[in-house]
Amino acid sequence: MQSRGIATRGRILRVSLRLFAQKGFNNTGVAQICSASRLSKGAFYHHFESKQAVFLELMRDWLRGVNGQLENVMGKAGSVPQGLLSMASRMREVFQAADGRLEIFLEFWQQARRDRVVWKGLMAPYREYRDMLAQIVRKGVREGSFRSVDATAAGQALETLAVGTLLQSVLDPGGAQWDRVIRRSVRLLIDGLAARRQ
Amino acid sequence: MQSRGIATRGRILRVSLRLFAQKGFNNTGVAQICSASRLSKGAFYHHFESKQAVFLELMRDWLRGVNGQLENVMGKAGSVPQGLLSMASRMREVFQAADGRLEIFLEFWQQARRDRVVWKGLMAPYREYRDMLAQIVRKGVREGSFRSVDATAAGQALETLAVGTLLQSVLDPGGAQWDRVIRRSVRLLIDGLAARRQ
Repeated sequence: MQSRGIATRGRILRVSLRLFAQKGFNNTGVAQICSASRLSKGAFYHHFESKQAVFLELMRDWLRGVNGQLENVMGKAGSVPQGLLSMASRMREVFQAADGRLEIFLEFWQQARRDRVVWKGLMAPYREYRDMLAQIVRKGVREGSFRSVDATAAGQALETLAVGTLLQSVLDPGGAQWDRVIRRSVRLLIDGLAARRQ
Repeated sequence: MQSRGIATRGRILRVSLRLFAQKGFNNTGVAQICSASRLSKGAFYHHFESKQAVFLELMRDWLRGVNGQLENVMGKAGSVPQGLLSMASRMREVFQAADGRLEIFLEFWQQARRDRVVWKGLMAPYREYRDMLAQIVRKGVREGSFRSVDATAAGQALETLAVGTLLQSVLDPGGAQWDRVIRRSVRLLIDGLAARRQ
């Protein structure tokens, strides 16, 4: 894509995120996205098939950032438990980077439930997280940090803590210090996985 | 309330739950609830202030059942860890008893965010769960089952596992066997809390 194309695509994404957050996903139309980003419908449809496609790209864009951060953190850590704790400590940034996307996610999800393609696009990344976390636990068992636990179960537990905290932080932002909740919860779970008490 | 009044109230709740689940909360009006339950608007408003009030009562009704079950299970358990594991094992029934209410919850929550009174009604019960779970952990420390952990943190972790699993079971029902996920996750967390390895 040429640089002007990339700039246009970026503008559509930025403007859409702002409009979705302000007016809700259902109440935002392609026409409004076009007028707010001073583009023709032709230009919009050159880049995206629909506003659903824009939203999926906004999710993927956020998750790419999250993945990059997580890989970076795990790569630097001296052990799997240390890596998982560092990941948990970065959740505040993950929450902040989500920047309204999760609220739209809940609205979008309701719309997407009857559309198989959109649905799969929506659910795929977080099923991948579960696999990634199971692999990390397996590595922890191999390196001797963890006892020989069921890695799938442990990966699901870690993912449930992350997703549960994220969703609660959206549903009830003032209900707790959610970045602290995830950090302390992961710490307790790691104690449960540990080969010996630390 | 006289028995006819109780029957009418129950009918409104049943019919509303069915309509909310079929058509969505936003797309269901009081007029439709009245016509489907063959009641006048006067009769409806005698029992409920609004359809929001009906939904809050549906949530409370479900949660009363959950609370009764949980108290029963904890009362019978020989120790706190056993009690928590039994609670986790009953989650399949909790999920089933929710019976569409959680999907409506997500839709309702979006609407409620700008209404302080409804919002508080929506969030209060699950803040209470967090306190209840913290108290249970404290009891576990007192009885010597758990090491001297931060009970608030542990209660939040348990609640996050429960809420996280519930929400994921709604968002992605086929993504995992959610009742199994909660059982195994709570088991791992209990291992992390344990005074000694079991």
